Amino acid sequence: MGKEVLYLKIAKIMMEQIQTETLQFGDKLPSLRSAQKLYNVSLNTIKLAYMELESRSLIESRPKFGYYVSHTSQRKLDLPSVTKMKDSKIEGTKEDLIDKVFGTISDSGITQFALAIPGKNFLPLAKMKKSIINVIKSKNDFGTNYEPVQGNHNLRREIAKWSLVMEGKITEDDLVITSGAMNAIYNSLMAVTQPGDSVAIESPAYFGILQAIQLLGLKAVEIPTHPVYGVDLDALKKVLPKLSACCFVTNFNNPMGFQMPNEHKKELVRLITHYNVPLIEDDIYGNLYFGAERPKPCKFYDEAGLVMWVGSVSKTMAPGYRVGWVAPGQFKDRIIRQKLVQTVCSPSLYSDVIADFLEYGRYDHHLRMFRNKVYSNYLQIQRAVTSYFPDNTKISEPKGGFMLWLELDKRICTEDLFDEAFSHKINFAPGRMFSQYDQYRNCMRLNYALEWTDRVESDIEKLGNMIKNNI
Amino acid sequence: MGKEVLYLKIAKIMMEQIQTETLQFGDKLPSLRSAQKLYNVSLNTIKLAYMELESRSLIESRPKFGYYVSHTSQRKLDLPSVTKMKDSKIEGTKEDLIDKVFGTISDSGITQFALAIPGKNFLPLAKMKKSIINVIKSKNDFGTNYEPVQGNHNLRREIAKWSLVMEGKITEDDLVITSGAMNAIYNSLMAVTQPGDSVAIESPAYFGILQAIQLLGLKAVEIPTHPVYGVDLDALKKVLPKLSACCFVTNFNNPMGFQMPNEHKKELVRLITHYNVPLIEDDIYGNLYFGAERPKPCKFYDEAGLVMWVGSVSKTMAPGYRVGWVAPGQFKDRIIRQKLVQTVCSPSLYSDVIADFLEYGRYDHHLRMFRNKVYSNYLQIQRAVTSYFPDNTKISEPKGGFMLWLELDKRICTEDLFDEAFSHKINFAPGRMFSQYDQYRNCMRLNYALEWTDRVESDIEKLGNMIKNNI
Repeated sequence: MGKEVLYLKIAKIMMEQIQTETLQFGDKLPSLRSAQKLYNVSLNTIKLAYMELESRSLIESRPKFGYYVSHTSQRKLDLPSVTKMKDSKIEGTKEDLIDKVFGTISDSGITQFALAIPGKNFLPLAKMKKSIINVIKSKNDFGTNYEPVQGNHNLRREIAKWSLVMEGKITEDDLVITSGAMNAIYNSLMAVTQPGDSVAIESPAYFGILQAIQLLGLKAVEIPTHPVYGVDLDALKKVLPKLSACCFVTNFNNPMGFQMPNEHKKELVRLITHYNVPLIEDDIYGNLYFGAERPKPCKFYDEAGLVMWVGSVSKTMAPGYRVGWVAPGQFKDRIIRQKLVQTVCSPSLYSDVIADFLEYGRYDHHLRMFRNKVYSNYLQIQRAVTSYFPDNTKISEPKGGFMLWLELDKRICTEDLFDEAFSHKINFAPGRMFSQYDQYRNCMRLNYALEWTDRVESDIEKLGNMIKNNI
Repeated sequence: MGKEVLYLKIAKIMMEQIQTETLQFGDKLPSLRSAQKLYNVSLNTIKLAYMELESRSLIESRPKFGYYVSHTSQRKLDLPSVTKMKDSKIEGTKEDLIDKVFGTISDSGITQFALAIPGKNFLPLAKMKKSIINVIKSKNDFGTNYEPVQGNHNLRREIAKWSLVMEGKITEDDLVITSGAMNAIYNSLMAVTQPGDSVAIESPAYFGILQAIQLLGLKAVEIPTHPVYGVDLDALKKVLPKLSACCFVTNFNNPMGFQMPNEHKKELVRLITHYNVPLIEDDIYGNLYFGAERPKPCKFYDEAGLVMWVGSVSKTMAPGYRVGWVAPGQFKDRIIRQKLVQTVCSPSLYSDVIADFLEYGRYDHHLRMFRNKVYSNYLQIQRAVTSYFPDNTKISEPKGGFMLWLELDKRICTEDLFDEAFSHKINFAPGRMFSQYDQYRNCMRLNYALEWTDRVESDIEKLGNMIKNNI
């Protein structure tokens, strides 16, 4: 097709401009209409050319702002490596290390790079307060009474309403309210496994998932994971028939930040459907995209009700409220029963407060602001790490969310580094937390959803110097 | 000892007066000082005589009001029977029945005899609202931030402060905040068992405990339980070496209402210590005593840290807040880790609201009012059941809390009766929910902590008539 050739030709021209640094990192590309005139082609041809560049991570689109040359175009630091399937001794999760990191959860004197907690300036505090007042005024029992076990009706309706990405496939009846996303993951795992069963996870994996698997007496199968494309589907396919569940963070993965491509998601859903293996999909960061639009979750492609889609307000509104949910497909009744046994129902007031905010708080506006702030911080931390960390540092390329994954010189032990950093009131998540094997010792995860101040800048510099001094 | 003989002599005189109805149900006894003058003996002798009568359930003391001839002195209806140890087929908990009953949890149109939910007029709503406002004003993040995993410091301090019954043996450091008592029981069970282990429970047992045992893949061992003295310690002793845990509701048992005598509690603690078997003690109703003082929990006698003492505000302040706690003794670290994995931390605001109420809400005053209301309702429901139910109805004799346990004619199936009652907008908890065996089919549990209105009176009459029509 001539048309296809044309857009590839234009894309190639632009690629050359980027490679020769005619177009540099951060430069804005011509708008679609300007480019159309410039190259004298149809709007669609330009769109295809830009999509081609975007798919190669050479340019990035920022909603309402246009297209920019991306960092990746001139990466100074490499991507982190992909780990192989392990056959070595399972050493379990590093409970003591995790305890140490979580010990800092409500310590406001520390620069919190460790935990995925958004800074106060990211949260809609004033509107949240307004919602609390609204709710107290409107409820004559002030929330002292029990909620339905499945969860507050208003809240479920609002969550369904705002699940635009699902294009109407989710209704309030499909949702169960949980005590944060972690509780949804824990209960989803419990609903589809028996002690001793195997569950596939990404490697590195979010330590919360590793801990839940251990607590429930399950076996984690760590699947090699690519820092840009996510879990290796070929490797997964080989073990899938032996698994009771998969548990993946498909969008803006924790800790790697990747967005699994749609084609991979479709293939993943096809595979789990074929082998009848439930997928717990932690999509807690899904709304925090840096690209043009909210990526689809696997749940969108799920016809069999095998995907248990997990979300929460902890990353964008109020971590302390512990309001999460799951759309558990065919496992809904089990999840509701488990919830009844574990806690009877969710606390009352918060459900109404979040529902009120979703209804009247201009949620879309808030998310847009939030995304812009997080993206700006991502550029900051990327720049800072590139400046202050050693040149052999490997760095992930998050497409959203608020986590950066770094692979340092082999000689660095980030577990030791944690103590040194902590004495300077800096923390981060050491890599060892993200596997049941003795690996990722030279890795770390950094949260960048904190207010970017001079202190934060200087703390990154301090971290970089500590690393340099330890090589 | 002459002194002992003297007090027994006086007790005997009074017993005769009660038996001959010289002293009738509800009559006030002379005050201790009047009686002392009357019998011309020491104050201590009179105290001993009254204690003797109280231990025989012939009189009851009402705090600040004095001693009254109790209902039991002239029982028209018998006590429920004690079940034998079963060797029959385990049929599991009646999940569908429990779902049906909990389906009514937020239905305000129904007379809620089924669930142990205090009526709105029992709760300190206005003060709770004040506490919410206080907290919102004082917290500049409006509770959006994470709490420490173990639980809010203020709340733990206030709970420790109000644990007067423990005589200073509980500090804030001993407590872990949970999502209601049910979550504390679930996590306590999880902390001390592996799937397949056996756990002793009372029979009949609170269905929440039965469900938690089932969800965790444990085996329930139902111990014969006396309607006045609680679990049969001789029967327990025989199976104790094979158990991983005991889980009992020692004070104002759910569903039977008994208060385990102190001597039994001491012996129970001695036994579990000897065999090194943890005891999960659900003491959620402990503050709702009808007698002279708050009964001691087993935890008070526990030196080894084997008792996991569970409490909550759900029965006295705000069921919907889901604020509970456990003093888990030697299992504290495990419980904290489990909590981290399951939900990261407790929701923030509620902890502060309850802490504020405990600090400034005149908690003692509230509890006194609450107890008086519940006791008055107990007398109402006891009278109503005696009037409207068939004469062969057996009725429990709660010493506190808000549950009445009835054993009806053998021909009655309360599971069928539930549907009939429900069509009249009345519900209750059918006996079958309280065992894993096919038993208690002719039993029911009634919650009497609801506002006693003409409708409630007439609903008890309706229930009585339905039963009569089914014999």
